[in-house]
Amino acid sequence: MSSICKHVAPEIIFGRGALSQVGESAVRLGANKVFIVSDQGVVNAGWVERVLSYLKAAGLQYEIFSSVTSNPKHTEITEGLKRYLESECDSIMAVGGGSPTDVAKSIATMATNGGVIQDFEGINKITKPLPPMLAVPTTAGAGSEVTQFAIIVDKERKLKMAIISKSLVPDIAIIDPEVLQTKSARLTAATGIDALSHAIEAYVSLAATPLTEVHSLSALRLIAQNLRESVACRTNMEAKTSMAMASLQAGIAFSNAILGAAHAMVHQVDGFLDTHHGESNACILPYVMEFNLIACPGKFKQIAEALGEDVTGLSTWAAAKKAIKAVRALVSDVGLAEGLAELGMKEEYIPSFSRNALKDACLVTNPRDADENDIAEIYRMAM
Amino acid sequence: MSSICKHVAPEIIFGRGALSQVGESAVRLGANKVFIVSDQGVVNAGWVERVLSYLKAAGLQYEIFSSVTSNPKHTEITEGLKRYLESECDSIMAVGGGSPTDVAKSIATMATNGGVIQDFEGINKITKPLPPMLAVPTTAGAGSEVTQFAIIVDKERKLKMAIISKSLVPDIAIIDPEVLQTKSARLTAATGIDALSHAIEAYVSLAATPLTEVHSLSALRLIAQNLRESVACRTNMEAKTSMAMASLQAGIAFSNAILGAAHAMVHQVDGFLDTHHGESNACILPYVMEFNLIACPGKFKQIAEALGEDVTGLSTWAAAKKAIKAVRALVSDVGLAEGLAELGMKEEYIPSFSRNALKDACLVTNPRDADENDIAEIYRMAM
Repeated sequence: MSSICKHVAPEIIFGRGALSQVGESAVRLGANKVFIVSDQGVVNAGWVERVLSYLKAAGLQYEIFSSVTSNPKHTEITEGLKRYLESECDSIMAVGGGSPTDVAKSIATMATNGGVIQDFEGINKITKPLPPMLAVPTTAGAGSEVTQFAIIVDKERKLKMAIISKSLVPDIAIIDPEVLQTKSARLTAATGIDALSHAIEAYVSLAATPLTEVHSLSALRLIAQNLRESVACRTNMEAKTSMAMASLQAGIAFSNAILGAAHAMVHQVDGFLDTHHGESNACILPYVMEFNLIACPGKFKQIAEALGEDVTGLSTWAAAKKAIKAVRALVSDVGLAEGLAELGMKEEYIPSFSRNALKDACLVTNPRDADENDIAEIYRMAM
Repeated sequence: MSSICKHVAPEIIFGRGALSQVGESAVRLGANKVFIVSDQGVVNAGWVERVLSYLKAAGLQYEIFSSVTSNPKHTEITEGLKRYLESECDSIMAVGGGSPTDVAKSIATMATNGGVIQDFEGINKITKPLPPMLAVPTTAGAGSEVTQFAIIVDKERKLKMAIISKSLVPDIAIIDPEVLQTKSARLTAATGIDALSHAIEAYVSLAATPLTEVHSLSALRLIAQNLRESVACRTNMEAKTSMAMASLQAGIAFSNAILGAAHAMVHQVDGFLDTHHGESNACILPYVMEFNLIACPGKFKQIAEALGEDVTGLSTWAAAKKAIKAVRALVSDVGLAEGLAELGMKEEYIPSFSRNALKDACLVTNPRDADENDIAEIYRMAM
């Protein structure tokens, strides 16, 4: 880190019972009528109803937009924006995983900046301040409640756009580990591996700083010690709380250090095949780590240690390789797919995916230079 | 950490050359005319002039208030507020160490909340939003550019008041290690030990969380590896940059985890004797660590490791004690006073200092319960 670094994070309210603070938090931001963005799974689990009770108690009005899908499409933003404007809300609250949160951010962007969501793809394209935003995550993985990122599928180009701007950081993130109890084991596993990939890619990122590195390593330690347990048991609140903290810390890290080749590549898979982001990450991340190993073996050694590997007496290089072994073991233990073919990936997609990955904003901070052939080769190995 | 924790930090711009971003940062906050709070030392070193050049280039007007003293008195706030209101400024920028920054925060508080500064002593007494605030630290120690704290001397009671509120967190902190080159060795040492005391007290605080602990430990590692070198040489930019980062990380940690008995006690010494906060800390901190040792030996062991002590094969207790040894060695190596008597402290002050320390907001999060006798005994040992 030799040049100027910039670091942003929202106000954070974290802990069991934190959900009860959504009302007063919205009031504090000047809200009168809150536009809630969620999805059916979260509504069915009862969390939106719980949020509403706190909003009502705080004297707030609201409107609910809950038709968001996994890997949200740009057309959902258009629909959500229309609903937001008609509702005359003055603030936006996401209640959900990465998808509703990214939709909420996109609606907020369009509400004050106009245009179409594609106009904001890339880095720092948002110029006007957004309405007050609160984020209540219901998964432990995406980290979107604290990040500068929104990831939206462009249905026409069939790829995920990365929109990166500090305007996208919500004003307040309210993180209550209690809400993680209604997640399935598979979603717990996939979102946990997503957090793992954030922590690793942010740690080796060219834009990493001491402010992000400490959070990456802490997230890795928490994930190594708690993801298996969290997948195993819905009511293990110690594991859930640690995973919520891991997701939060990985989010703070990658929001400011950005990501790398794994995310640039995963965005193409998810955008085209509508795979769960954590599952595609599980397949691609180990191969990207192998590719990146020569760029920063010392950092990979530290990742291995954070993941609980014993590196006593090993060379830096041998220790670094243990990071990859640890990731493979974790992915396998939590029962995720270990090859892209299982997710519907085909050899014939590789050329276009590789071309598009090369243009993804996340590739810029990857520690090893990668060209189209390198990326194609990683896709092939990850099949 | 079992209950709900809250965490806030400003937007951070960090690195050599960051000073050049003060103008555009103020514009981004909607500023037209900036009220600059500084002191004569900083003005004489040329940093205020440098800041002005960037403000002018951004088309901003300004007013300078530079009569702040070390351990700023409540009467300076009254004077500064009058100047702020007369100047018709719409934003406030601190350019200096902890003193100008805390005065800037206090003026901002009074500008919108009215009353007298004593009204806001304690936790969360500020109810109305403050004008946009920017902070440009010129020392590596106070950390006030990122904290919820303002510490002001009440001249009548002859003590330091701790004002703690998230409203006091500046909107943007702009940290340029270049400015540290004009500091004397003694000020570098004293402010560095201040940062050390923040990192240690925040780490063992009852309100510490994973979000603060990682920053405490990182700050300790950076201080152990760079404070001596930074004191030794004005132009060692690697050491200066590391100390600026250490101060920043210790600031994020203690802003959110609060402090402990050392600060509660030091506030009385500084308020009465006008000592430099870092010097009084250097005398008191090791004795408070000894007192606190039984509360959390495991954490003190981690402090010892972060400070570079070899704890291989030691019991937790023996390892924990090495933290105190490391702090004593550092204080001695950088040439600070090791006893309060050198700073003008007298036995006869102990009863009133102890009574007042008991009421200081920082004592609440000390890991070991302390009564008036305990505090008096620590003052006695630190003489």
